[in-house]
Amino acid sequence: MQPPISRYPVPRLEDLPQDIRERIRKVQEKAGFVPNVFITLAHRPAEFRAFFDYHDALLLKDGGLSKAEREMIIVATSGANQCQYCVIAHGAILRIYAKNPLIADQVAVNYRKADLSPRERAMLEFALKVALDSHALTDTDFPPLREHGFSDEDIWDIGAIAALFALSNRMANLINMRPNDEFYLLGRVPKS
Amino acid sequence: MQPPISRYPVPRLEDLPQDIRERIRKVQEKAGFVPNVFITLAHRPAEFRAFFDYHDALLLKDGGLSKAEREMIIVATSGANQCQYCVIAHGAILRIYAKNPLIADQVAVNYRKADLSPRERAMLEFALKVALDSHALTDTDFPPLREHGFSDEDIWDIGAIAALFALSNRMANLINMRPNDEFYLLGRVPKS
Amino acid sequence: MQPPISRYPVPRLEDLPQDIRERIRKVQEKAGFVPNVFITLAHRPAEFRAFFDYHDALLLKDGGLSKAEREMIIVATSGANQCQYCVIAHGAILRIYAKNPLIADQVAVNYRKADLSPRERAMLEFALKVALDSHALTDTDFPPLREHGFSDEDIWDIGAIAALFALSNRMANLINMRPNDEFYLLGRVPKS
Amino acid sequence: MQPPISRYPVPRLEDLPQDIRERIRKVQEKAGFVPNVFITLAHRPAEFRAFFDYHDALLLKDGGLSKAEREMIIVATSGANQCQYCVIAHGAILRIYAKNPLIADQVAVNYRKADLSPRERAMLEFALKVALDSHALTDTDFPPLREHGFSDEDIWDIGAIAALFALSNRMANLINMRPNDEFYLLGRVPKS
Amino acid sequence: MQPPISRYPVPRLEDLPQDIRERIRKVQEKAGFVPNVFITLAHRPAEFRAFFDYHDALLLKDGGLSKAEREMIIVATSGANQCQYCVIAHGAILRIYAKNPLIADQVAVNYRKADLSPRERAMLEFALKVALDSHALTDTDFPPLREHGFSDEDIWDIGAIAALFALSNRMANLINMRPNDEFYLLGRVPKS
Amino acid sequence: MQPPISRYPVPRLEDLPQDIRERIRKVQEKAGFVPNVFITLAHRPAEFRAFFDYHDALLLKDGGLSKAEREMIIVATSGANQCQYCVIAHGAILRIYAKNPLIADQVAVNYRKADLSPRERAMLEFALKVALDSHALTDTDFPPLREHGFSDEDIWDIGAIAALFALSNRMANLINMRPNDEFYLLGRVPKS
Repeated sequence: MQPPISRYPVPRLEDLPQDIRERIRKVQEKAGFVPNVFITLAHRPAEFRAFFDYHDALLLKDGGLSKAEREMIIVATSGANQCQYCVIAHGAILRIYAKNPLIADQVAVNYRKADLSPRERAMLEFALKVALDSHALTDTDFPPLREHGFSDEDIWDIGAIAALFALSNRMANLINMRPNDEFYLLGRVPKS
Repeated sequence: MQPPISRYPVPRLEDLPQDIRERIRKVQEKAGFVPNVFITLAHRPAEFRAFFDYHDALLLKDGGLSKAEREMIIVATSGANQCQYCVIAHGAILRIYAKNPLIADQVAVNYRKADLSPRERAMLEFALKVALDSHALTDTDFPPLREHGFSDEDIWDIGAIAALFALSNRMANLINMRPNDEFYLLGRVPKS
Repeated sequence: MQPPISRYPVPRLEDLPQDIRERIRKVQEKAGFVPNVFITLAHRPAEFRAFFDYHDALLLKDGGLSKAEREMIIVATSGANQCQYCVIAHGAILRIYAKNPLIADQVAVNYRKADLSPRERAMLEFALKVALDSHALTDTDFPPLREHGFSDEDIWDIGAIAALFALSNRMANLINMRPNDEFYLLGRVPKS
Repeated sequence: MQPPISRYPVPRLEDLPQDIRERIRKVQEKAGFVPNVFITLAHRPAEFRAFFDYHDALLLKDGGLSKAEREMIIVATSGANQCQYCVIAHGAILRIYAKNPLIADQVAVNYRKADLSPRERAMLEFALKVALDSHALTDTDFPPLREHGFSDEDIWDIGAIAALFALSNRMANLINMRPNDEFYLLGRVPKS
Repeated sequence: MQPPISRYPVPRLEDLPQDIRERIRKVQEKAGFVPNVFITLAHRPAEFRAFFDYHDALLLKDGGLSKAEREMIIVATSGANQCQYCVIAHGAILRIYAKNPLIADQVAVNYRKADLSPRERAMLEFALKVALDSHALTDTDFPPLREHGFSDEDIWDIGAIAALFALSNRMANLINMRPNDEFYLLGRVPKS
Repeated sequence: MQPPISRYPVPRLEDLPQDIRERIRKVQEKAGFVPNVFITLAHRPAEFRAFFDYHDALLLKDGGLSKAEREMIIVATSGANQCQYCVIAHGAILRIYAKNPLIADQVAVNYRKADLSPRERAMLEFALKVALDSHALTDTDFPPLREHGFSDEDIWDIGAIAALFALSNRMANLINMRPNDEFYLLGRVPKS
C-alpha cells in the first residue's frame, strides 16, 4: 500500500472543472501518467490555474535559456530547499532534456561538483542566491552573468524560475507532496 | 529626482495589453495611485497575470482567515526575507485592515513582541516555518493550529500565502522594486 | 488597555533618585513625552546612569559622523537584531535628523535597498559586521571605510555605536521594552 | 572524455602495495567494477588502510542495525554535507540492501518525507545531530532511541557511522572524488 | 617583540585624566598588572567611564548570583562570540573565584560538557540565548530559571551581563584587544 | 569524586587485547599518563585500531607541515566544533610543540587574532573551510596555499587532518569524552 500523495484531500479527476481536467489530460498524454503535482494542487482550482500559468510562462516561453538550463535551476534550488517532489520530478525532466542520465543527481547534491560549463555554474550560483539570500542581491551580481552571454531578460528568467520554485518547494513541503514512482527511473536508461 | 522603481524597463501604461491596463486602472481607482508592483511586473505580461491571479486566489477568497490576518502573514514573512517593497506596501494595507496604526511596524520587526492574540502568534510561527524552514514541516506542526480554531483549509491558506510571498519577495529583490512613497504614511493617521 | 512597557517593575518618576529624575525631565521637555527606555531602565539606577553616559558619549559627541549617520547605524543593526523598541524609537529620530520620512523604514528592512550614498552603504556594511560577525573583523575591513572619508576615529564611532546597541537590543528584548505610541508617527508628516 | 575522478594523482593498480591491490581486487569481484573511492584514496596507502579498516569495523560488524539502516545513515548525513560521491555511491548500496529502488533519493533529499518507520526516522534525526551539531548532544538525546529498541551499542554505531562519514564526506569534497557512472543506475531496475 | 595590544593608539598612563588614572592604579594594585582592557579603552575617556561604571554596576553589586556564576556567563558568551580578550582574561578571573583550575577552559569550549550544576547549566543556556538569539526570548524562558532558585532580579543580572559582554566582545574585536600574558596562567596552579 | 570520562563503559587495561595494551603502554610512558581518548575508545578495539592508525598516518608522517602546524589545525577546527576533549588535549600538545604557552588558547578562541604568520593563517582558513563548509571547496581555494609554500601533498595533509578531527570531535561529543586533568597545565609553565 502506497503512502498518501498529499496531506490534503486529492480530488477525483471527474470532479474537477473542465479546463483543469483538460490540462491534466494533456500532460498525461505526453508523460504517460499524471504527475502528482497536478492532481494534488487541483484541490484548489484557482491556485492551480495560477500556478501552472506561471509555470508555463517561464518554462514554455522562448528565450536565451535552454530547456535543460531551466530544469537545472529547478533541481539545484529545490535541492537547497530539500523539496523531495521537485528534485525527483524535475530531476527526471532534466535528464531527458539534457540527454544526460547523470546530471540531475549531481546538481541535486552539489552543483559545484557537477559536470557543468562555466556558464551553467554562474547561472546556478545566481539562482541559489535568489533562492537563499535574495535580500543580499546587488548590482554587482549581474555583470558576471552578462559575461557568460546572459541577457538581462535571461537573468530575469533565471531569478524568476528560482522564485517560482521557492513557492513550489514550500507548497510541496506544506502538503507533503509525493513524487510518482515513475519519475525515479525516467531518463536514466538510454532508449535502444 | 527619484531613484528608479525597478532594475528592469518599466512599461508605459498605454503600451500594455488591455486586460492588464484594466486591472491596473481598477487598483488605481481604489488606492488613488498605481502601486509599483503592478507597473514593474507588467514588464512580463504573462507572469503578471499569473502572479495576480495567484494573489487574488489567496487574498480575495472567502475563508477562515480575516483580511488583516492574511496581511500579517505577508508582513511577517517579508520582514524575515528583508523585502523592502512587501514590508512597506503590505504594512500599509495591514494598518488599514486591522484599523491599527502600530501593528505593521511591530510585526515587521519581530512578531513575538507585537500586540497579537495567541491565535495570531501561532499563525505567524507556522507561516515563518513555511517561509524559512519548510523542509522541516512535519505532522506535529498542524495540531497546535487546529487548537486555535484554524481548519485544515485555513492552514493551507496560511502556508500558501507564505509560499506566494516567498516568490514575491524574491522577485522584488531581483528587480529592486521600490515602494511608492504613498505607502509609508497610509493607515498611520486616523481619519477625522 | 495598553500592554505593559516592561517585563519588570516600572518605577514611578517621583521615587527615582534626583539625578535620574532630572535627566528624564530634560528628555521629556525636548521630546514632549518620556521615552520608555528611560523609565524602564530606571528600575536599575546604576545601570541606567552607565547606559546613558555611554549613549551620550557616542551620540552627543562631535566627530566625523553626522547625527543622521549615527541613527542609521542604530536602525540598521537593531533591525538585524529584531529589536522592536530600537527600530521604532530610533527610526523616528532618524527621520527627524535626516529630514527624510522614508529612510528609517528602508534601512530597518534592508539597508542595501535604501536611498543611501556609497559612503553610507559602506558604513552600514561595517556596522552590521560588528553587530553580527565581529569575530571575523580583520585589518582588511578598514581601508574601504577610509576611502569613503572616514577617519580611524570615525570607524571607532561606527563600531562602538553598533556595539552599544548590541547591548541595548539585548536589554530591550530581555525586558520586552515597548516603544511609545508617539514614535510611530514622528517625522513622517512634514510640518507645515 | 570523462572529467578526472580526483584532484590528486590516481595510482595505477599495479603500482599499489600488495594488500591494497588485494583489497581492491575483492571489491571489484563483488561489484563488477572498482569504486573510485578505493583507487583515489589509494594515493595514500597508510590512510587508505586506516579508512577501510574503520569502514569495515562499522559496516561489516554484527549488531542491532541492519545493513540498510547503516546505509541510510550514510546517505542522509552525506546529503546534509552535500557530498556527491557518498550520496550517489551509498545511495546505490542502500537501494540494493533495502531492496527498494526509491528510498535512496528520498533519504538524500529530505529524510523527514521518506518512506521510513518511526524507528528509522528517530535514528536519522540522531545521526544528523551528530553530523551537524554534535556539540549540542546531551543525555536527553539517548532515551528516545532506546524507546525505539536501539541498545546503547547500537547508538554508538549510529553516531560512529555519522562521524566516519563526516570524515569521508570532507575527504571526497577535498579531492573532488567523482562517483563511477555505474552507481547511478544500480538497484533501480528490479532484476527479472 | 610583542604584537600591539590595540588597533588604536594606547594612551600613556600619565596622560590620562586623574579619575581614570586612579581607577587603573587600583586595579593594578589588586591584580599586580594593568589589564589591557583598561589602558586600551582609556583612549576614549568618556566611554571608558561609562563602560566600567556599567561593569561595576553588574559585577560588584550584591545579588543572588555568586561572583563565579557571573564570570561563567562572561566566559560562555564570550566563547560563543569568539572574543579572545574576554575568554582569556575572564577565564582567569573565573578560575580564581571558582577556585577551580579546570572550569574556565571547559565553559569556554562548550558549557554543556563542563562540570556544572543543573542550576549553572540553566543559567548559561539563558545567557547564551540573550547573547545569540535575544529576539526569540519569550515569557516561557523565565520559569525554568525560577525553578532553579533565580529571582526575577537575578534573571535581569544574567541577561544584563550577557548584554554588556555583547558590547564588550564587539569592542575587543573592533580594536583587536590583546590579552595580557599574565592571564593565561592565573588560577591554574594552586598556591602552596 | 570525578565525573565519568565516557558515556560508555571504560575497559580495564588488563582486559584489552595485547596490541592495544601495548599501544597504550607506550603513550603512557611518553606522556606520564594515559590520555582518556585511548582508554575510552578502546571500548571498541577494531575502531580503536583504525582510528589510531589514521591518526599516526597523518600526524607522525614526514611532510611539509611542522608538528606544531598540525596541532594548530586540530585545535582550530576542534574549537569550531566545540569539542572539549580535543581543544584541551591537543591544546597542550600544541603548546609543547610550538614551545609557546599562549598559542593554544588564542587559536582555540579565534585564530584570526592569534600570533600567527600569514602562512599559518592561510592554512587555518583552509582547514576551517574543510571542517565547516567542505561542500563549497573549489579549485580557487588551492592557489593561495601554494603561494604560501604548501605543496599539493601538504594541502591534502591540512584537509585530511581537519577531516579526521571532524570524526574525532563527533566521537568525543557522542561519548562525552572527558579530558584528563593533566592536559590543562601542560606546556604552560616553562621548565626551569
